[in-house]
Amino acid sequence: MSTEPLRLGVAGLGVVGGGLLKLVLNRGGEFARVGAPLAVTGVCARNRSRDRGVDLSGIAWRDDPCALARSEDVDVFVELIGGADGSARAAVEAAIAAGKHVVTANKALVAEHGRALAEAAEKAGVAFRYEAAVAGGVPVVRAVRDALAGARVKRVAGVLNGTCNYILTEMQATGRPYEDVLADAQRLGYAEADPAFDVGGVDAAHKIAILAALAFHGVPDFADIPVSGIEGVSPVDIAYAEEMGYRVKLLAVAEAEGEELDIRVSAALAPDDHPIGRSEGPDNVIVVDSDPVGQLSFQGPGAGEGATAAAVASDIVAIARGETGPVFAAAASDLKSVRVRDVGGDLARFYLRLALRDAPGAMAEAAATLAKHHVSIAAMQQPETEEDAGPDEPATVVFITHRVRVRDIEAAVAALETDAIALRASSLIRIEDFD
Amino acid sequence: MSTEPLRLGVAGLGVVGGGLLKLVLNRGGEFARVGAPLAVTGVCARNRSRDRGVDLSGIAWRDDPCALARSEDVDVFVELIGGADGSARAAVEAAIAAGKHVVTANKALVAEHGRALAEAAEKAGVAFRYEAAVAGGVPVVRAVRDALAGARVKRVAGVLNGTCNYILTEMQATGRPYEDVLADAQRLGYAEADPAFDVGGVDAAHKIAILAALAFHGVPDFADIPVSGIEGVSPVDIAYAEEMGYRVKLLAVAEAEGEELDIRVSAALAPDDHPIGRSEGPDNVIVVDSDPVGQLSFQGPGAGEGATAAAVASDIVAIARGETGPVFAAAASDLKSVRVRDVGGDLARFYLRLALRDAPGAMAEAAATLAKHHVSIAAMQQPETEEDAGPDEPATVVFITHRVRVRDIEAAVAALETDAIALRASSLIRIEDFD
Repeated sequence: MSTEPLRLGVAGLGVVGGGLLKLVLNRGGEFARVGAPLAVTGVCARNRSRDRGVDLSGIAWRDDPCALARSEDVDVFVELIGGADGSARAAVEAAIAAGKHVVTANKALVAEHGRALAEAAEKAGVAFRYEAAVAGGVPVVRAVRDALAGARVKRVAGVLNGTCNYILTEMQATGRPYEDVLADAQRLGYAEADPAFDVGGVDAAHKIAILAALAFHGVPDFADIPVSGIEGVSPVDIAYAEEMGYRVKLLAVAEAEGEELDIRVSAALAPDDHPIGRSEGPDNVIVVDSDPVGQLSFQGPGAGEGATAAAVASDIVAIARGETGPVFAAAASDLKSVRVRDVGGDLARFYLRLALRDAPGAMAEAAATLAKHHVSIAAMQQPETEEDAGPDEPATVVFITHRVRVRDIEAAVAALETDAIALRASSLIRIEDFD
Repeated sequence: MSTEPLRLGVAGLGVVGGGLLKLVLNRGGEFARVGAPLAVTGVCARNRSRDRGVDLSGIAWRDDPCALARSEDVDVFVELIGGADGSARAAVEAAIAAGKHVVTANKALVAEHGRALAEAAEKAGVAFRYEAAVAGGVPVVRAVRDALAGARVKRVAGVLNGTCNYILTEMQATGRPYEDVLADAQRLGYAEADPAFDVGGVDAAHKIAILAALAFHGVPDFADIPVSGIEGVSPVDIAYAEEMGYRVKLLAVAEAEGEELDIRVSAALAPDDHPIGRSEGPDNVIVVDSDPVGQLSFQGPGAGEGATAAAVASDIVAIARGETGPVFAAAASDLKSVRVRDVGGDLARFYLRLALRDAPGAMAEAAATLAKHHVSIAAMQQPETEEDAGPDEPATVVFITHRVRVRDIEAAVAALETDAIALRASSLIRIEDFD
């Protein structure tokens, strides 16, 4: 173990940055024991006056993250600014160019520019580590990059956004609608004031893109990943799913299909006895199937000051131990080119809820439209209309399909809505059985 | 990444050794991509003629594992012989002395001689890695050593023996007695012909000793760890536990208590909605509580050719990547001295099943004896005696206690048996609520 302190420059002193400073400043002896003594030699953030619960008086304050990244007394640049571009990216590029190791919690940066950054870091001979970027305190980056280095990953699937999982769990427990529960989550600090990245699936997509790059040795083009969120999930969907032994989850999946990658983020029905379906509240769960290992699952806090800061700290310890291995399991120059597959031709089972036009024969028309699009029905339920429903209230009907082609059922739903057989509030959710 | 092949000498060609050779010989290109090309330059096993499903013709055969360990054309000595002493230990010591990296799946060796081997390896500047020694394909050694290097572990608990978990799950599903299910498990290959190490808890104790060393930076004296197994668990215990919302598990726990370590292996009742209680079949589950991360859980195949071989391979890849960090999270010279704590003074809830002497007043005497030993009862059930029970059949009574001192209830049970109030077949099982 080294006795020379490893000198950190920390850019971004929000929740995670503050947590990291607390760890490093209050637990110096422990880091010396497991890796090297740590010293924070410089910090940088937007607001200098905010109280972060730690004494910053002996630490140089820099206004420019790029200047901090290049600073002579910094060995490791810790980027906790966030965002795929802007000052985070500029500062990381500056750090690598100056021969500094980089640790980041920035999933957008790694997902969208990981390949170029990996090439630059490997050329410069520096580490570029990002355990905290995926699933917070759950060490799944290490698991896929290192522990499964001798295996062939077949599928990575996960509940990777704690905000969505909290909202869906609450909706299930209380039967309350999405908007109400989201407002509560914002009040409790489980959701951002602008929740679009979380509830819209982009945050989970960044994480699954990173896991896919680690698992399949190739960084997918982020813009090609089909992403949808949980905004359209209603309490009745959750209740029907529960009756059938399923839970509605925001599911991120990446699966190798030959040279292509099936990667997507959307609401999905997962069996309630599977680790994905069972996960509750703000936890993250990741399930990795590989040959010859079989199925591994990992669960824990996917966000939060302490868990995320500890993940950042674990990367700093790895650098202290001299671990500057490949950024994405394989050397950047050896990464494959992976193409995101069009899943339209795939077969899957679906849950479909329609709000039928309240007119005689609407059900028969719906059934005919589904049949015309080769959508074969396994089960149908039509709950009684509530007594106080007015005469123009739509009638709800729920279908479970047999295995159908994705593009067929999407076309069927579009036709139902275009022909005004169903209102434009249909809920189409893929069923994942993980078999 | 290196293009020079890393040369392996593999001692022990049983299930795991055979699996490793298949991986290395059949997937050469993949190892080159993630670390370095691998070459098996020498092997050693007891039986040269057995067919292992791989072509060994180009590989040097050695009869002496120590000679293989010292061999000039070996960079990494892979020890898959097993056993805490004997040729496994001698060969590992020889390899380290000759400056070779060592990878092993040998939990007994690491648990009983880990400290001395770590000192030798660090002095020699070689890696000593053992991911496969704990929980097979579940990368929990990495998780605790590396991912939690920036956290303070409070407790590690696990279902670490797949054989026991398979037997207990089958007993629960079928209501059949231990002996019958064990015989089935042996027939199916889930249990060894001599199952003593598994069902008696020693195998799990080796694994928890290793996890404790990683978590608490000190190797406990293996002989001090209290160990018991599942031989005494009966189907009625499992059924009562189930009624109360618990599962009977062989539980391994290590918890820091100041400078001491609470570490033990025994049957225990775990809540059926906790990852430990929920685990079924041959899977392993490990739950790690730490500050500031919170609770992480890891689940997957704890044994088997492929999973264990892939874990061994992951350590070889780490060596190819130049990762020769500390053997037990801290440098061997910095390991603390940890003392295994006497848990007699601890408070815990217990499940107690007594076979009462069939005589008037036996129940009153039992209650009096428990009270005399400060054992306070939270609930009691006395199932009706079966109709066909003879007059001398003992009457079963099941108690759930409030929190009582461990040594008090142990003394109470001893007194009940000594005084012949209960037959010598009492079942005393600690309840773990993981709070």
